[in-house]
Amino acid sequence: MFSVTVRDHLMVAHSFRGEVFGPAQRLHGATFVVDATFRRADLDADNIVVDIGLATQQLGAVLGELNYRNLDEVPEFAGINTSTEFLAQVIADALAERVHEGALGEGARGLAGIGVTLHESHVAWASYERDLRPAR
Amino acid sequence: MFSVTVRDHLMVAHSFRGEVFGPAQRLHGATFVVDATFRRADLDADNIVVDIGLATQQLGAVLGELNYRNLDEVPEFAGINTSTEFLAQVIADALAERVHEGALGEGARGLAGIGVTLHESHVAWASYERDLRPAR
Amino acid sequence: MFSVTVRDHLMVAHSFRGEVFGPAQRLHGATFVVDATFRRADLDADNIVVDIGLATQQLGAVLGELNYRNLDEVPEFAGINTSTEFLAQVIADALAERVHEGALGEGARGLAGIGVTLHESHVAWASYERDLRPAR
Amino acid sequence: MFSVTVRDHLMVAHSFRGEVFGPAQRLHGATFVVDATFRRADLDADNIVVDIGLATQQLGAVLGELNYRNLDEVPEFAGINTSTEFLAQVIADALAERVHEGALGEGARGLAGIGVTLHESHVAWASYERDLRPAR
Amino acid sequence: MFSVTVRDHLMVAHSFRGEVFGPAQRLHGATFVVDATFRRADLDADNIVVDIGLATQQLGAVLGELNYRNLDEVPEFAGINTSTEFLAQVIADALAERVHEGALGEGARGLAGIGVTLHESHVAWASYERDLRPAR
Amino acid sequence: MFSVTVRDHLMVAHSFRGEVFGPAQRLHGATFVVDATFRRADLDADNIVVDIGLATQQLGAVLGELNYRNLDEVPEFAGINTSTEFLAQVIADALAERVHEGALGEGARGLAGIGVTLHESHVAWASYERDLRPAR
Repeated sequence: MFSVTVRDHLMVAHSFRGEVFGPAQRLHGATFVVDATFRRADLDADNIVVDIGLATQQLGAVLGELNYRNLDEVPEFAGINTSTEFLAQVIADALAERVHEGALGEGARGLAGIGVTLHESHVAWASYERDLRPAR
Repeated sequence: MFSVTVRDHLMVAHSFRGEVFGPAQRLHGATFVVDATFRRADLDADNIVVDIGLATQQLGAVLGELNYRNLDEVPEFAGINTSTEFLAQVIADALAERVHEGALGEGARGLAGIGVTLHESHVAWASYERDLRPAR
Repeated sequence: MFSVTVRDHLMVAHSFRGEVFGPAQRLHGATFVVDATFRRADLDADNIVVDIGLATQQLGAVLGELNYRNLDEVPEFAGINTSTEFLAQVIADALAERVHEGALGEGARGLAGIGVTLHESHVAWASYERDLRPAR
Repeated sequence: MFSVTVRDHLMVAHSFRGEVFGPAQRLHGATFVVDATFRRADLDADNIVVDIGLATQQLGAVLGELNYRNLDEVPEFAGINTSTEFLAQVIADALAERVHEGALGEGARGLAGIGVTLHESHVAWASYERDLRPAR
Repeated sequence: MFSVTVRDHLMVAHSFRGEVFGPAQRLHGATFVVDATFRRADLDADNIVVDIGLATQQLGAVLGELNYRNLDEVPEFAGINTSTEFLAQVIADALAERVHEGALGEGARGLAGIGVTLHESHVAWASYERDLRPAR
Repeated sequence: MFSVTVRDHLMVAHSFRGEVFGPAQRLHGATFVVDATFRRADLDADNIVVDIGLATQQLGAVLGELNYRNLDEVPEFAGINTSTEFLAQVIADALAERVHEGALGEGARGLAGIGVTLHESHVAWASYERDLRPAR
């Protein structure tokens, strides 16, 4: 199994609801250093997993929709705790959709899975892993 | 699959028995930077993998039993090479026990697995991965 | 010249005023990984720069006053851009005050300077360096 | 499952063929920070995954065959894009061969798999994972 | 004293002349992870050291002139060993020129100095520090 | 001002005397990731700060005298707290001596200073900086 990972980052404000979050129930913020991993069983015709330029560009585009925002005010997250693990899933699913739309190139249709890790500090991070099924 | 990882560290002395260890047969020591990863298939009612505050606290408690000690003098390790990979297992098993006892919260009973990585330097690390089965 | 550095982190929301900040004029947030460095010309009677336990504890206390907050609502920062470099100064000055009050131990009165670095992402950080003058 | 990872690095020149590579079609170069991971289900008689000294030495030997070279001129890579993911496979396969030859010690014959990650910068890396079958 | 640092990277091929370089006399390559630090005594009217967006953009532009090239064929480096420390100076001087031209904004004319660090691997890096004099 | 840094590591056992050290008064250990920085005003005839091969080799030799040892039993440290900051000085002074003896090459006699940083964990490190005077 092969994989390629690209890194970018995201700076957002948000708050959490639930006693388990303690002081993080207050409006605060985070830098998430985001690693997006693309997996496949075999390399494509160019001997790569994915066009790393397109992967970086599309990850940037996905993050651009969230960057420099207060997630408490994003309609699609209304009533949802935007935890690090949840955001990893949001980003992985958005990348999967872009793969299916062809935004990562035709070769990327052969990808087997996507994983996203969000580092919220030097001592904590969260990940989400999912399969990719050919769109056809 | 989702995961959350928290990081802490541990400073111990120890020695090894066996020619394979070369100069590490002498009493020496190590800082282990410890990453504990908690995995589960779906997020809990708070939209998280585990209460990251409890995870950090319990990892600290597990490491506190080993920290600033000479492992050669710890009775439970008598006659055992306390290799980095072995210590990863000791820590993962201790965390698993605490999950089963409820020390990581009721939601943590839904965890699927635990992984522990110990970094012994900038050029070497070791990991141990295990499943978690609901106690019930 | 000797130095000792301890690391902790801080998660806040804030916004900036001024065209130069672009989209960061919106309310967003950041994790700041904070390195506090204590400098002195000679080691103290215990052969150290500073009690690393007290240094860690006092850095934690200084960060605790800012952590999980929206800096736009902190009265002392009213009308001020809480840039990374500015926050480095705020933290360094708060640590300097604690050194003068004796909170880092009597030996710490011999410190020559303090530096604080705030990492706002994997690709950007800011620092502030200042001298410490004996209180006497 | 246990694993041990050792890190080393490699500095090479190369160029790529194919529009997807953009400016990387020109002769350029890279430092690859290389992590080699050895996996097995149970620890060996010395309570380890692999002799970390031999693992480091053999990884160094494998990298030594590529280090400080222009990969465009290496006969075995003629007509092949020496992408990061491809090089991860080349290194993993060379390590697997050395395991089978006994170069990592008799105990290493119990290894279950090898993974190799090549970091090409602070924002991109690639991996290859493979199983190891006992030579018997 | 305040500073702000931004990070980017560069991938080049080159070779060295001189016995001291051993196997690095062969054509090989490197990824340089590049940190550019801007220093000043006081913050500007926006409470910052420099517009971090412009700093990132201008660092990218400076690196863009070298990226994905064989430095042995760059006319301005003819007969020169393009060592890591030398390249740090080349990049710092190019940034200084851009500061003087106003490319980092009017406020940047108050900068006191520039430092550039090039990381050539996880175990080696080089830096160059220089003063900046107001262009006036 | 130019500098070059090389990294290696050291694994030792030791204990401290003095209440300030708390549980670290017990025999424990540490991995020190060691960065040795060599500084000079101008590059030498080869366009470098120092022969990075010799620098790495000599740092390794200096660390080899301490590695895999219990520092409490090293005669030259009898009655001394082998704190991280103190060990940074020991290593810097040993490197300075080797520079003066010519072990880092003739060109290294032009070095202006040496700095050594010892990372004792991911959240703490210590440094020592000293000048070098030409032997002549």
